[in-house]
Amino acid sequence: MLRAMARDAKASARDLRVAKRGEKDTALELMAENILSRKDEIIKTNNRDITRAREKGLSPAMIDRLTLNEKTISSMVAGLHEVAALPDPVGEVTAMWKRPNGLQVGRVRIPLGVIGFIYESRPNVTVDAAALCLKSGNAVLLKGGSEAINSNLILNEILAEAVNKANLPGKSIQVIPSIEHEAFGILLAMDDYVDMIIPRGGEGLISFVVENSRIPVLKHYKGVCHVYVDEFADLDMARDICLNAKVQRPGVCNAMETMLVHKKVAPSFLPGMIVAFRDAGVEIRACKDTLRLVPGLKLAKDSDWPTEFLDLILAVKIVRNMDEALDFIDRYGSNHTEAIVTNDYERSKEFLEKVDASVVLVNASTRFNDGFELGLGAEIGISTSKLHAYGPMSLKELTTTKFIVFGSGQVRT
Amino acid sequence: MLRAMARDAKASARDLRVAKRGEKDTALELMAENILSRKDEIIKTNNRDITRAREKGLSPAMIDRLTLNEKTISSMVAGLHEVAALPDPVGEVTAMWKRPNGLQVGRVRIPLGVIGFIYESRPNVTVDAAALCLKSGNAVLLKGGSEAINSNLILNEILAEAVNKANLPGKSIQVIPSIEHEAFGILLAMDDYVDMIIPRGGEGLISFVVENSRIPVLKHYKGVCHVYVDEFADLDMARDICLNAKVQRPGVCNAMETMLVHKKVAPSFLPGMIVAFRDAGVEIRACKDTLRLVPGLKLAKDSDWPTEFLDLILAVKIVRNMDEALDFIDRYGSNHTEAIVTNDYERSKEFLEKVDASVVLVNASTRFNDGFELGLGAEIGISTSKLHAYGPMSLKELTTTKFIVFGSGQVRT
Repeated sequence: MLRAMARDAKASARDLRVAKRGEKDTALELMAENILSRKDEIIKTNNRDITRAREKGLSPAMIDRLTLNEKTISSMVAGLHEVAALPDPVGEVTAMWKRPNGLQVGRVRIPLGVIGFIYESRPNVTVDAAALCLKSGNAVLLKGGSEAINSNLILNEILAEAVNKANLPGKSIQVIPSIEHEAFGILLAMDDYVDMIIPRGGEGLISFVVENSRIPVLKHYKGVCHVYVDEFADLDMARDICLNAKVQRPGVCNAMETMLVHKKVAPSFLPGMIVAFRDAGVEIRACKDTLRLVPGLKLAKDSDWPTEFLDLILAVKIVRNMDEALDFIDRYGSNHTEAIVTNDYERSKEFLEKVDASVVLVNASTRFNDGFELGLGAEIGISTSKLHAYGPMSLKELTTTKFIVFGSGQVRT
Repeated sequence: MLRAMARDAKASARDLRVAKRGEKDTALELMAENILSRKDEIIKTNNRDITRAREKGLSPAMIDRLTLNEKTISSMVAGLHEVAALPDPVGEVTAMWKRPNGLQVGRVRIPLGVIGFIYESRPNVTVDAAALCLKSGNAVLLKGGSEAINSNLILNEILAEAVNKANLPGKSIQVIPSIEHEAFGILLAMDDYVDMIIPRGGEGLISFVVENSRIPVLKHYKGVCHVYVDEFADLDMARDICLNAKVQRPGVCNAMETMLVHKKVAPSFLPGMIVAFRDAGVEIRACKDTLRLVPGLKLAKDSDWPTEFLDLILAVKIVRNMDEALDFIDRYGSNHTEAIVTNDYERSKEFLEKVDASVVLVNASTRFNDGFELGLGAEIGISTSKLHAYGPMSLKELTTTKFIVFGSGQVRT
């Protein structure tokens, strides 16, 4: 059955890749309308998932993520309008040139085809992912968590109805109804039908997908992000940035996990900074040098340096110089987001050049690694592997380019 | 041992990613010098591989590919000079924009890191691949065929010496000496060290790599390329293009395998065309309609349509209209190269838009799907999967982009 769905997706993708922007935007607006008009039904169906989740003893956090209510539905609808308003990436000619033999060669942006989207129990992701895939001209197979299956299926019905009404193929959006684990294996092997897999979830899920997929996977494992406070930093600015990077939303991948401080500014910077962190409820795990400056802190273990705490916990290390900071980031960083605070021109340049991370910042919070914040429009995820996409992924990353060649009878000699 | 090599590669990549163009070009020029000055030694070592290959009873074609002589060495050296002359893709800022909060955001081109290159028994590929990887700032692990191991190892020594002399890390280029099959499995699992795998070889090798790799793979399986001769084609032009596409070099992936002819021009076009093909030694496998026009031809079997003959064999089919041609290409094509011959404006536009292939041409031979021919400079391969690269891959496809952000104290609210 999964293969039949994939076949339908591929057939739909063939129509979608030549769909006009107007048709796609109409479908997105109709989706928003349909969701609003069937809101009560959605909430009632979602309640069935919630009841079952409670019976199974799922944690309150999981049940929270599973829940659809007036607020989450409004935000799904707002998301649909936003995606409709974004420019269509398909059809853009990214470059065109002429060859000595007169051939005119261009690269034109096209959809990828069929995308397999694997995620956990947030049913709002069903709508977000479907919208981005449709706008970029891709068909999508959605494999959400089994806890959300009823919510996902009704959303699928509502979305597909809208797509049909806009005269696009309804099978462009298909939720995989099977709740068995084996659906994964079959999905990940269909490289004849599916062009890309995007897994969104914990490290376990992502590792499983990478290990078992024949299809290219866009993913990020984790964000172990650093802020390096240089000896030439504006220390007030450094404090604002570090505080923001750690506490503004500690549970996300672009939050700071380790703060590196140049030894020359450590005595003037660290004591006040650590008071500010403590006031914000942050637990500090410090290197020995930091302990000498601010006694009574918890000593960091080796295992703290590569850890993504995703919590109000911060590792702090004093470094002798910028090279030590760069080495440290190279060793413990996760190629996600790295920032320096400095007013020295050469150091800012060196940091931007030498650090291998998807987003490298000077004098700004790591929290800016985000599709919206960087100005890309809606975001489908963040990639920390380098192929195809590195950093926040937007509509453009759901496309590729093909070569088009205008000849007048040229042959090769 | 393979893990130690990979670790060295990763450490080298860290230096290479900030290497200046001058240093990289010096290394390439020194490689060319070294190869020329140690030419006799190379040929002598290569002879040992050839002798062993003869003892093993390898086919003359395989021994031909294995052989290094004055001519192949000259062409390797010329290749090195060409790569040195190409612009450095690294450091290009592909876009930069300003956000409402004053953040300046840019995307800058960077090397991928470490590339695993898997190929069969052509030792010249060792030099070509090493040159392209070095120029694009990547370290490379080279896994060639076991028949060529002595040739590859001496080339490795010569290349690494040149890299060292240019003050770049010699471990940037490493031939994997193990000739055991198990080296594959280990290489393909090292996603902590290797950023991309490029396999070059037969379908068997590529399938094996795709099935066993945890690392993203850039590949193409096969080229089943069509030329569609439309009812509005200039038939003289169509004859030149079809002949060129089939016979100029039949053993390569961008040669035409099936010719589609609109029924309205079939009677005037096909008989003469088929005579021309027969004069060029091409065996025709024809559909029933073609047989009615040109009796005595071999009838095509169903299995001929999806076949990459790589030989002087051509499948021929008459179609009722352009839609049938598009359906046929969608069903049997391999997303590689597709061409239309027509003088009708709307049809040219429709073909370019609707056909899903890495290179789509109007009024030109399929043989132009090639990095050099399309003006990209040196080519590292052709990708028919859509992620990261689609079509001929040049230096640029050995890079990715990271985001750089220039702030002045911005935090997220």
